Amino acid sequence: MERRVLVVGGGFAGLYAAVALSGAPVRVSLVDRRNHHLFQPLLYQVATAALSPGDIAQPIRHILRRHRNVQVLLGEATAVDVAGRRVRLADGAALPYDWLILATGAGHAYFGHEEWRALAPGLKDIDDALEIRRRLLLAFEAAEREADPERRRALLTFVIVGGGPTGVELAGALAEVARDALARDFRAIDPRQARIVLLEAGPRLLAGFAESLGAAAAGELAARGVDVRLGTPVTGLAPGRVEAGAERIAAETVVWAAGVRASPLARSLGVPLDRVGRVLVEPDLSVPGHPEIFVVGDLAAFLHDPGAPGVPLPGLAPVAIQMGRHAAANVRRAVRGEPARPFRYRGRGMMATIGRNAAVAQIGRLRLTGVVAWLVWVLVHVRSLIGFRNRLLVLVEWAWAYLTFNRGVRLITGVAGLPPRRPAEAEPARRARAS
Amino acid sequence: MERRVLVVGGGFAGLYAAVALSGAPVRVSLVDRRNHHLFQPLLYQVATAALSPGDIAQPIRHILRRHRNVQVLLGEATAVDVAGRRVRLADGAALPYDWLILATGAGHAYFGHEEWRALAPGLKDIDDALEIRRRLLLAFEAAEREADPERRRALLTFVIVGGGPTGVELAGALAEVARDALARDFRAIDPRQARIVLLEAGPRLLAGFAESLGAAAAGELAARGVDVRLGTPVTGLAPGRVEAGAERIAAETVVWAAGVRASPLARSLGVPLDRVGRVLVEPDLSVPGHPEIFVVGDLAAFLHDPGAPGVPLPGLAPVAIQMGRHAAANVRRAVRGEPARPFRYRGRGMMATIGRNAAVAQIGRLRLTGVVAWLVWVLVHVRSLIGFRNRLLVLVEWAWAYLTFNRGVRLITGVAGLPPRRPAEAEPARRARAS
Repeated sequence: MERRVLVVGGGFAGLYAAVALSGAPVRVSLVDRRNHHLFQPLLYQVATAALSPGDIAQPIRHILRRHRNVQVLLGEATAVDVAGRRVRLADGAALPYDWLILATGAGHAYFGHEEWRALAPGLKDIDDALEIRRRLLLAFEAAEREADPERRRALLTFVIVGGGPTGVELAGALAEVARDALARDFRAIDPRQARIVLLEAGPRLLAGFAESLGAAAAGELAARGVDVRLGTPVTGLAPGRVEAGAERIAAETVVWAAGVRASPLARSLGVPLDRVGRVLVEPDLSVPGHPEIFVVGDLAAFLHDPGAPGVPLPGLAPVAIQMGRHAAANVRRAVRGEPARPFRYRGRGMMATIGRNAAVAQIGRLRLTGVVAWLVWVLVHVRSLIGFRNRLLVLVEWAWAYLTFNRGVRLITGVAGLPPRRPAEAEPARRARAS
Repeated sequence: MERRVLVVGGGFAGLYAAVALSGAPVRVSLVDRRNHHLFQPLLYQVATAALSPGDIAQPIRHILRRHRNVQVLLGEATAVDVAGRRVRLADGAALPYDWLILATGAGHAYFGHEEWRALAPGLKDIDDALEIRRRLLLAFEAAEREADPERRRALLTFVIVGGGPTGVELAGALAEVARDALARDFRAIDPRQARIVLLEAGPRLLAGFAESLGAAAAGELAARGVDVRLGTPVTGLAPGRVEAGAERIAAETVVWAAGVRASPLARSLGVPLDRVGRVLVEPDLSVPGHPEIFVVGDLAAFLHDPGAPGVPLPGLAPVAIQMGRHAAANVRRAVRGEPARPFRYRGRGMMATIGRNAAVAQIGRLRLTGVVAWLVWVLVHVRSLIGFRNRLLVLVEWAWAYLTFNRGVRLITGVAGLPPRRPAEAEPARRARAS
């Protein structure tokens, strides 16, 4: 009987592992709790109403439809039964394996304050992005109906926690939403008065990038009116309020883009994890003592990079893709009875975009900023999007947004209502600006 | 002080009323519980994964941004205070008016079985469409993992209740999803084996259309493998089962496209309503005894059409648009001290699409079927979509779908998991088809 490879997770690492096992003399199953692969680098554009979810996500089974030895299953993995060589699912099923490739990624860490999660959603999947979009747009709607100037100001204050690529990209995009897309759509408020605050605990933005690029990003954000606060860790969150040391910011909308916590599935392996819960993998990406289990992508802490030994590889799409392919190649070798080979990351550069005509990028020793970096960013991202259809649609959306300064997908879906108001505020804020 | 016109509802009737009041010497507020206007004739394409929500919806305030005397407010109207001339909102606020244009539309009627709503969602807004899309796609996912052939068959049986335009369009689109878009994506099941049942209580499909067109639609659906049952009212619904008289259909997914129930806001007017809760309006669209209140769109029962006196005008977009404009014109007349004029509907025809290259249309005495009707349908709908951007995107989506037989937006969002399984079913249904 054919031997079984189970891939858990349909992100970049898992998807590319499954593709790389196509045609191998094994039976491959890929299981994910979502039916779609997500092009995560553009997720912030869904959160800020520039793209539709369908533009950056594709059904995993559709992507893999031509790989006839690969089956895609919908299900949520809850534990690895290492001794029994199977993975348990939330619905009670168990999937057996001869080789396992674990690629369940990471979520946000709230530094021991799990109660902050509801107040400040993170940005990891499409439902997160739609929730953030809903909150951003509802804040402007509530402000339009708010008579009290203090509360209106809190509704128009947006705090983004974390100055990594996601935080920088969200802050830049949100500044454009307020300044351009919404500028003429309201009567009682002026969306251009919105205040966007980016809080970063560390001394600089984009800690993983060259120092000059972090400074360039801070400058570009400031030029767009974003209030960038470095060395400012969040110490408290309450509804309508952010505390950062002695300072209190009255803000109704907070988005979390800080801290990483690996998927809890790693704990069931019973092997050493690093501080954020990632699996300390062997040089060949396998788990210590279990050559049949590989861990790839954001779930893996790979400390064997010759360029920086002891420092984990960053959680980037190119790292995940190369790890997924490498684990698949090692499975193929094992099937043939050959020994596994060590993984070696081939650096592909990093980039973050700040907005219209502005980005930062580093590719090898090259440092790019401004329009040039932005053009490289557009090319790289459109080129990488899975599927011709998405590429075309994203190009249409972007061209339209670029030409009109507008954002096409400003829909509030799900729970749409405003919170109940106190009787004293019952009259709408009509003409607050005109008077 | 300027006098106030309040428009409640941002569907076709309310939106076109607000536009028609642009520049008039009145202060206009449009309030809706959603922030977006929806191009409802294409909503079934969101439910069947052909279009993204953003393709057929636009923020109301963006559509109206250039009409400076119009303010858009987000809020849910709960009652009209006729004596106090104001409309109460769910959040406790109250909006005063001198003239009121009510356009809150209609929902689905479950014929006294409100408990069926959770089992068989209707298709009225974007959240409905996403819920139906989620259920359709999850049924195929669950079938792929189901070992028991009987349960697998129930998962692959889809029942649509109601043979009006929405039911016909959903049935046709769903047949194409199963036959074309999903055909090669599964391993354990063959989506082409899915059974699609369209139940209609009356003796024919498309009751509002010419009889020959109802028969043509039934023929086209049958040719696509849809099981069309006429004279078959639903008598019972339970999880996994539909009862139609003596017959029981084992089906996990049921969609409701039958019965109309006007918005409950009408009841607060204290005037006579028709059987389904619509307001029996005067010839000028006002409410009896209240010349300052107009009711338009699906909420109005207009029985004064000279072509068919005593028969309400159908719930079509062109009817709603003309009513909204007419009510606005009557408000403008009232502002000038002129008397209101009676409404007269100028028939614009009706059409319904069955699928690729097949539709039915009647325009005056013209009756069209097949490819010709389908081309007319595509032209009319793309031309009518609000906003250039949406037109372009929808064309791209359609061209892509037409050329590839694929559906681009097959995302399961929201609650994504499968229901828990009994231990006996714990092994996945791998290779059920191959063995």
